[in-house]
Amino acid sequence: MSDHEENSSPKIHVQTPPMAAPSGNSRTPAMDSSGVAGVLRRWKREDFMKRGSFGLRGIAFLFSLISFIVMASNKHGDWREFDKYEEYRYLLAIAILSSLYTGGQTFRQVREFSTGKQLLKPRMAAMVDFFGDQFIAYLLISSVSSAVSLTNRMREGADNIFTDSSAAAISMSIFAFMCLAVSALISGYKLSTQSYI
Amino acid sequence: MSDHEENSSPKIHVQTPPMAAPSGNSRTPAMDSSGVAGVLRRWKREDFMKRGSFGLRGIAFLFSLISFIVMASNKHGDWREFDKYEEYRYLLAIAILSSLYTGGQTFRQVREFSTGKQLLKPRMAAMVDFFGDQFIAYLLISSVSSAVSLTNRMREGADNIFTDSSAAAISMSIFAFMCLAVSALISGYKLSTQSYI
Repeated sequence: MSDHEENSSPKIHVQTPPMAAPSGNSRTPAMDSSGVAGVLRRWKREDFMKRGSFGLRGIAFLFSLISFIVMASNKHGDWREFDKYEEYRYLLAIAILSSLYTGGQTFRQVREFSTGKQLLKPRMAAMVDFFGDQFIAYLLISSVSSAVSLTNRMREGADNIFTDSSAAAISMSIFAFMCLAVSALISGYKLSTQSYI
Repeated sequence: MSDHEENSSPKIHVQTPPMAAPSGNSRTPAMDSSGVAGVLRRWKREDFMKRGSFGLRGIAFLFSLISFIVMASNKHGDWREFDKYEEYRYLLAIAILSSLYTGGQTFRQVREFSTGKQLLKPRMAAMVDFFGDQFIAYLLISSVSSAVSLTNRMREGADNIFTDSSAAAISMSIFAFMCLAVSALISGYKLSTQSYI
């Protein structure tokens, strides 16, 4: 029985879908280093990464959109208007940029999933993904840091709806930064595997 | 003559050092996809990357050390003392952290070059390199952004030796950030090639 199972296992692996392969494989550790199991594991990992980076960009899009809306509506008259402070204008500009970038990327990925047609060449797409994610992540953390120090200074004097809205917009930008930082890691992995295809 | 050259070319490639292989290879494009040339090209690229990331960390170490010294000696009495502003204290703290990290990494790499002995396992070292570089790069850009907005605001009122020294320290931190950002790209590439060895 055991002998028969070992002999037929490569065929089973080929016929089962990628998701089911590792569980059927757990009793035969020697199979782990074989070609078929390795390829299946790699497919599964790449599929997971593709969906992971898609989800992360979608979440980053939501967070930067909220940050943009909260900051843009942060006008309460007198000194409590966001456009009197360059740090808040910077945060708003980067939130808009990040919304456009992550929105565009999500749109492109949804279109690729539905039509199965690639808008860019795979290598080109991997480079755009990686440099875009990394660049927007650096911009977001930079805008957040400058806005945080101004808000901190203001809250020492007064704590009102203006400073609270600013703090909310800053938090949303921080969440968007976190999603994009993880997405940049995944895109960096994808970029470097591209070279060997 | 041409036929003889093509037949003997694989032997020539094996005997020449990796640096000379691509120039001797340029007349026979069919050889580019062969195993030997591919391995030699990969060795050359990895060697270049190893030295590249070593040089970049060394330069980042110098820049963050200068930033740390300039900011720490920025005390000119009255309101012109760096430790009265949390943004400058933050910049100083991150410059110290970055000096320690890049100094430690450079020391480790120099020691590995001279003794040929690895302090960490290759996979572990690649992970420490990548996450360290990326994390310090984010910290540096964050501290720079918060210090820039404070310095800008101060220079609207007064432009003296205190604001000039702050601006110098900020510039040095920006250069250190640039070196570490490029180094993080290289380490990310190295980390992802580790999985396939």
